[in-house]
Amino acid sequence: MDIKKLERLHPELKITYMKPEKRVGLTVVLTGYGKGKSSSALGMVLRACGHGMKVSIIQFMKGDIYTGEWDGIRKLDCDVELIPSGMGFCGIQGNPYSHPVHREAAQRAIKMAKEKIESGKYDLVVLDEINNALQLKLVDLEQVLELIRGKPHLMHLILTGRDAHPEIIDLADTVSEVKEIKHAYRKDIEPQPGIDY
Amino acid sequence: MDIKKLERLHPELKITYMKPEKRVGLTVVLTGYGKGKSSSALGMVLRACGHGMKVSIIQFMKGDIYTGEWDGIRKLDCDVELIPSGMGFCGIQGNPYSHPVHREAAQRAIKMAKEKIESGKYDLVVLDEINNALQLKLVDLEQVLELIRGKPHLMHLILTGRDAHPEIIDLADTVSEVKEIKHAYRKDIEPQPGIDY
Repeated sequence: MDIKKLERLHPELKITYMKPEKRVGLTVVLTGYGKGKSSSALGMVLRACGHGMKVSIIQFMKGDIYTGEWDGIRKLDCDVELIPSGMGFCGIQGNPYSHPVHREAAQRAIKMAKEKIESGKYDLVVLDEINNALQLKLVDLEQVLELIRGKPHLMHLILTGRDAHPEIIDLADTVSEVKEIKHAYRKDIEPQPGIDY
Repeated sequence: MDIKKLERLHPELKITYMKPEKRVGLTVVLTGYGKGKSSSALGMVLRACGHGMKVSIIQFMKGDIYTGEWDGIRKLDCDVELIPSGMGFCGIQGNPYSHPVHREAAQRAIKMAKEKIESGKYDLVVLDEINNALQLKLVDLEQVLELIRGKPHLMHLILTGRDAHPEIIDLADTVSEVKEIKHAYRKDIEPQPGIDY
């Protein structure tokens, strides 16, 4: 940890510590077609870890292709777990698994998510790319709505993935749509480690 | 680290390790008025750390109010530093510092950013909320463009903050605009730890 510097350029500055009068567990949805949905959820995980919170991340699509956050999370000295339960994107990019196989994996994942959320043990649960899993019919709308409605009052829940269902948006407190203005792949730049995976 | 689980729901799955034929350092801009710009940059930091990259984060506006990522980054067993150089948002929310004081802090920060970027030692540099610093005239457009144009070819550079300047967008490879669909504060919910700070 000695490699870490948290220096300030103006050490005379007084730091304010915020404390909400009323603690609330938020439901946050990150949707849209631009880059920055899963990574935003991961950034909030880092923030939550700073506050000493207990976190679970369940990835619904990722699982077949290595991505840097798997080791990033391992290197985080916090009470955080990451469970890549996906088998890649069903039906695209030469993915070899059939829809029933994808659905079976997603169904195991959503049951586990339900148990974790209902346990009351977590401060933050991330359901990464669950919107995609819903759109691909790997999970059902009612299953997702039930998770949101049934979550502990103080637990934050983050749902990511393009094409968030309107009923999920209705239930959420904070919803961002990430629009693509430009993307490197349109210049035929391959996915790059540290940014794209 | 034994508290960390990285279990797979289908251990029989083969994991593919991507490796781009051509490594490129990307310039990424996260802009717009919705939630998820700084947190997305932090998520990419976590990802980069997973790849063993060396990272510097310079926060241009944050510095006066505690935010969870300060301790989150400390808990990350990686070669990463976070430097909160800001004095809060100039001119709003009862911020007590004058424009010249804010500008002096931002000028120290951008000079440090330049040295770090030009050192060639970093794989990823994040200039958090530099777009706001530019709009508030705490730094100058030419200073920011010079950083982007002069960065090492393999180094990733992430710039965040609302109202990204069109010339910055022009130089970037990947640009996302985060649109607010809903935000908890509109329901009079105060900022909550782990999500908002």
